[in-house]
Amino acid sequence: MTDNQEPHYTENVQEHLLQVQRLLEKHALVEAVAHQQELPRADRHELVDKLLHKRHLAELREKLSGLHSADIAYILEALPIEQRLLVWDQVKADRDGEILIEVSDAVRESLIATMSREELREAAEQLDTDEIADLAPDLPQAVMRDVFKSLSIEEREQLRAAMSYPEDSVGALMDFSMIHVREDVTLEVVSRYLRRFDELPDHTDQVFVVDRDDRFKGVLPINLIVVNEPERIVGSLMLADTILLHPEDKAEQASQAFERYDLVSAPVVDEDGKLVGRVTVNVVLDFIRTESESDVLNLAGLREEEDIFASVWKSAKNRWMWLALNLCTAFFASRVIGSFEGTIEKFVALATLMPIVAGIAGNSGNQTITIIIRSLALGQITTPNARHLMLKELAISTLNGLVWGGVAGLFAYFLYKSLPLGLVMTGAMLLNLLLGAIVGMLIPLAMQRMGRDPAIGSSVMLTAITDSGGFFIFLGLATIFLI
Amino acid sequence: MTDNQEPHYTENVQEHLLQVQRLLEKHALVEAVAHQQELPRADRHELVDKLLHKRHLAELREKLSGLHSADIAYILEALPIEQRLLVWDQVKADRDGEILIEVSDAVRESLIATMSREELREAAEQLDTDEIADLAPDLPQAVMRDVFKSLSIEEREQLRAAMSYPEDSVGALMDFSMIHVREDVTLEVVSRYLRRFDELPDHTDQVFVVDRDDRFKGVLPINLIVVNEPERIVGSLMLADTILLHPEDKAEQASQAFERYDLVSAPVVDEDGKLVGRVTVNVVLDFIRTESESDVLNLAGLREEEDIFASVWKSAKNRWMWLALNLCTAFFASRVIGSFEGTIEKFVALATLMPIVAGIAGNSGNQTITIIIRSLALGQITTPNARHLMLKELAISTLNGLVWGGVAGLFAYFLYKSLPLGLVMTGAMLLNLLLGAIVGMLIPLAMQRMGRDPAIGSSVMLTAITDSGGFFIFLGLATIFLI
Repeated sequence: MTDNQEPHYTENVQEHLLQVQRLLEKHALVEAVAHQQELPRADRHELVDKLLHKRHLAELREKLSGLHSADIAYILEALPIEQRLLVWDQVKADRDGEILIEVSDAVRESLIATMSREELREAAEQLDTDEIADLAPDLPQAVMRDVFKSLSIEEREQLRAAMSYPEDSVGALMDFSMIHVREDVTLEVVSRYLRRFDELPDHTDQVFVVDRDDRFKGVLPINLIVVNEPERIVGSLMLADTILLHPEDKAEQASQAFERYDLVSAPVVDEDGKLVGRVTVNVVLDFIRTESESDVLNLAGLREEEDIFASVWKSAKNRWMWLALNLCTAFFASRVIGSFEGTIEKFVALATLMPIVAGIAGNSGNQTITIIIRSLALGQITTPNARHLMLKELAISTLNGLVWGGVAGLFAYFLYKSLPLGLVMTGAMLLNLLLGAIVGMLIPLAMQRMGRDPAIGSSVMLTAITDSGGFFIFLGLATIFLI
Repeated sequence: MTDNQEPHYTENVQEHLLQVQRLLEKHALVEAVAHQQELPRADRHELVDKLLHKRHLAELREKLSGLHSADIAYILEALPIEQRLLVWDQVKADRDGEILIEVSDAVRESLIATMSREELREAAEQLDTDEIADLAPDLPQAVMRDVFKSLSIEEREQLRAAMSYPEDSVGALMDFSMIHVREDVTLEVVSRYLRRFDELPDHTDQVFVVDRDDRFKGVLPINLIVVNEPERIVGSLMLADTILLHPEDKAEQASQAFERYDLVSAPVVDEDGKLVGRVTVNVVLDFIRTESESDVLNLAGLREEEDIFASVWKSAKNRWMWLALNLCTAFFASRVIGSFEGTIEKFVALATLMPIVAGIAGNSGNQTITIIIRSLALGQITTPNARHLMLKELAISTLNGLVWGGVAGLFAYFLYKSLPLGLVMTGAMLLNLLLGAIVGMLIPLAMQRMGRDPAIGSSVMLTAITDSGGFFIFLGLATIFLI
């Protein structure tokens, strides 16, 4: 195979999955044969088992040993629980740790549930302290105690630090694999020091310059070591004016800094200016992906990501809060309609038109919410900007109310040949669109002010208001002007 | 100022914005004074202008010259159009190019609209060819012709290549700032070669090893140059088994590879195995952020990201497609209800209950869509998995139908003291939830099969079906069993 025919990485991963599935099918077939042809069971089973069954598993083991942990994680996630555990059993024990780190939370849970305390301890001990901290919430306490005992004093300190920061802080993203040098040495000395490593920690694009008290002085990009003469002094080349992160910073802010300044790694210093760790771009990438996924999941009212092979019961529970909440608001809206039963009885056309009024304002209000949440995330909402935006959203809603309310009014007029009905329709659309715009602005701003994530729950509150409000406005206007 | 008091980067950016806004306010105040006190206008205006007005602008210019381009881009995005253009005028012309690259599409449009052909040409000429390609769609043709003429033959070739790939391909992400070396030289030679650069291109974590025909042979991480003895031969250290991207690959696949394998840069080779460019993690980060933002925007039916200071008219147009589409489906649903007017007239309670049936199935179906789209994006949907998922979603909907349909049935029963009505309610909820699950599965799968993005429009189609379907099922059952 020449280099340019090297298998295509994307086909690779799915190809790997298909190969694994094929091996699992063969394995399952053999199992089925062994169990079906019961007589003479003992011999046959033993024979088949020895000849074929084990062979497929051995093939599977070999296949897996050639794969990147991230690819194994992908395969585990894409397999139903039974096959997943079969594959998991064939993974070499010394890779358990890194794979547990790679898989999604839900799948990790399913894997950990099958492992013994001993296996878990061994898996955890293969990891760096910052990775152990990531795994910690899923591990039994007894295992964590064992792991803790096996660490050096410095590592225990790191683990304690990493576990002490909230999940959405820089402290939770940072690792401790940073290289530090002094500012008064030459590049020659730095190079000699670096050569003592077999390889540098991943994502080492810069080494950190500290004084003898571990206070952060600056960074020295590896590239500068490479392009400069060995006699140069670190202090004369290092960059002192650089991004500094703090462990208690919000992770979201750090990720914006990485995007904005195109960073590969960044130092983390504590309030005394001491270097305590670093954040690398791969962790930021994972963070951004996870955040954006959980945004999408939250919009649909899924509490957390779902293992696609989780039990029906587990998946249903993940979705119930949202459905229950929506049911409550629907009951409320239903009672709003109920209070106008008399009006509807007299003019049944109202029942056919009212969902239009409620629905469009919900759509339009959701557009407002999306714009506001995005602007909040980008830090664009200052006091004058907020005023400007409010006026603009109201203007857009007025325009929409006249245009689409007008269309809906004509629709009602032509259907039921009633001019008053058409006017009530247009008026109700306009008012409800304005309501949607106001509520769509205020909900995320209020949630932000209360320190809550405006992306969670804004939409369901809005829809509750535009639904009930729409029914109330439309049926209310109809009661006044039509009856 | 000691190092550990270095201004905090996050406070920094917003602090910068506030400082700029303060300067703009002072400037505006002076302008206002100059215009209000009309007599003796000429003198006063000139005086004020000279003494204060210009001073604030000079201060502003100085402030801006100390800022990172990405920070200026942020400030431009957070300012209303008039102030934005004032600030834009104070930015040094030689930074125009990099800032235009940083700002969002909508804001870029507003800036470019004010620039002369000459200014645009100069701005574009400050950029690398891959960046010019990014800017190209927004530049007038005449400017692009000028820019093209100013490039070297090699650069023209690069620009042509970069512009020829679709926006969502690896070709559109790649740049041409890669360093290549031969496999038969020593690290010593490589180091000497690298020292000829003042600095290496950003994100150079590896150099690329090619043969004399530019065919890709492998990568040599800079870290390996640093930790190994200078006598080592490149060929003995380089990694031949590495991720290769192809210009026509989907950008999404490349971004998954970066996440999966924690890459900082990756080589791009053409079908002949020739090295044509590289992709770096900062571009991937931007791509992921943009994608996830456009997912969220699309879910709310916003065609593109909105400049928060765009005109009402422009913003409204951005939102109209969606509202028009929703209005059409609402009209249709309204006609479905209309065909049961006779039934509603006889039993007006139906009008109060029908929105519950429609709404909950829409919510539940959207959860199904979200799960399916996510699994599709992760490549987890194989034929057996799809079958498994379909059965599971149906099971969840049956469970939800019994539980929440039961609750809604009880609600209806207690309100209207009619057992048949309660049973119709429960039955309709169950059937419509099943409809939502089936449609929520089939729509994204069908869109994927047709080669379309399943995230766009799935939700509105689903809601159309669960609304009309819900009204039809509920009122239909009611007509059969209650009238």
